[in-house]
Amino acid sequence: MIELYTWTTPNGEKPIIMLEECGMAYDLHMVDIGAGEQHSDRFKGLNLNEKIPVLVDRSRGGHSETIFESGAIMIYLAELKGQFLPRSSPARSKCLSWTFFQVANTGPMIGQYHHFNDAADETIDYAIKRYRTESVRVLGVLDKHLRTNHWLAGDYSIADMINYSWARAGLRELSGHGAEGYDALAGWVERIGQRPAVRSALEKLQDAKARHG
Amino acid sequence: MIELYTWTTPNGEKPIIMLEECGMAYDLHMVDIGAGEQHSDRFKGLNLNEKIPVLVDRSRGGHSETIFESGAIMIYLAELKGQFLPRSSPARSKCLSWTFFQVANTGPMIGQYHHFNDAADETIDYAIKRYRTESVRVLGVLDKHLRTNHWLAGDYSIADMINYSWARAGLRELSGHGAEGYDALAGWVERIGQRPAVRSALEKLQDAKARHG
Ligand SMILES: N[C@@H](CCC(=O)N[C@@H](CS)C(=O)NCC(=O)O)C(=O)O
Ligand SMILES: N[C@@H](CCC(=O)N[C@@H](CS)C(=O)NCC(=O)O)C(=O)O
Repeated sequence: MIELYTWTTPNGEKPIIMLEECGMAYDLHMVDIGAGEQHSDRFKGLNLNEKIPVLVDRSRGGHSETIFESGAIMIYLAELKGQFLPRSSPARSKCLSWTFFQVANTGPMIGQYHHFNDAADETIDYAIKRYRTESVRVLGVLDKHLRTNHWLAGDYSIADMINYSWARAGLRELSGHGAEGYDALAGWVERIGQRPAVRSALEKLQDAKARHG
Repeated sequence: MIELYTWTTPNGEKPIIMLEECGMAYDLHMVDIGAGEQHSDRFKGLNLNEKIPVLVDRSRGGHSETIFESGAIMIYLAELKGQFLPRSSPARSKCLSWTFFQVANTGPMIGQYHHFNDAADETIDYAIKRYRTESVRVLGVLDKHLRTNHWLAGDYSIADMINYSWARAGLRELSGHGAEGYDALAGWVERIGQRPAVRSALEKLQDAKARHG
């Protein structure tokens, strides 16, 4: 059985979207990061970095797999199922470039913007401006690419799934701060949000959160 | 022929290390990011995100490949050569987890620390402390893992190569700020730095920089 350890955050949404897109069975284990459950000894045994998501696959016969970092989880599932990650290049390398783009750019930059804009106990204009500017810039890279591409890398793929949640959150928070003209990106977010697997994934996550703890 | 567009920075070192480890032929194109060469129209045509490194492979017969994001480049080369990325799991997924760990953690966090500690024109103690603490923490995750593992994921792999440059830079800058006890990490940095391919890669990069512009 596949176990997914996750929470209702942008990084936590990615693998459940992929599991639903692949029609796979899985057990959902909610880790309330607001309550610090990612710092338990049990969870540290799954990910030394103490962050969700983590996927454990106990269906591999002789061994079990414990995979951390959402990008690694997406590739693992794609290769397990033979879906959503092309086998050969150039389609494959495009998909990998846009997958890494997410974890290295929109994730950390919008994450730092959240911190300084919403969470920090000091108001630091320099940092708010820095991360707002950079977040708008990286969302703009996606928008520009999507003006001439229906999906990020050929067919709908893990690159779209992994970029979706941060782009959705980023557009919501940065409209009015520079991201308001990103129509190609907004249209792509809308298209993904309407997919049955994506809707079902986000509903299951919210239901599991409501039942948790 | 393979063309590598890069510069003498931690992200820029990764793919040349891999090319040297694989014994591959390549043309080195230096992009002086201090002089803004990453913002030229020509370079934007290679990477909309305007960052090095980029790899172009024109040796694929019918098509050429343009790959951005160092993680995607490492996987591309590993799969092209069948080296340094195990084909099957759990070795493969471990290698991918630690590869993504780098681009999502040490890269952005030590990068932000650099900015606030060295580059920003305001001194913002809150931000210096935030990124120093987080950089020391993520280097600590690597150290802890390396206390019981000779390499990050089984045999020497792209996970080691991609983590090397940021760990080396991070240890240098954060010793005396909390990273001074990271002996396992320091030993691993030392082991990698002594590899002939790594030495040759870093020398070629410095030589190319000296010849550039
Ligand atoms: N690069 C990681 C990011 C994971 C991440 O930042 N997870 C957050 C939730 S969105 C977390 O667990 N935060 C809790 C903490 O940092 O203590 C990935 O893509 O999996
Ligand atoms: N996540 C990217 C990071 C690339 C990156 O940050 N490159 C820096 C140099 S180390 C760069 O080109 N900076 C120039 C700029 O941002 O204008 C990767 O791993 O390839």
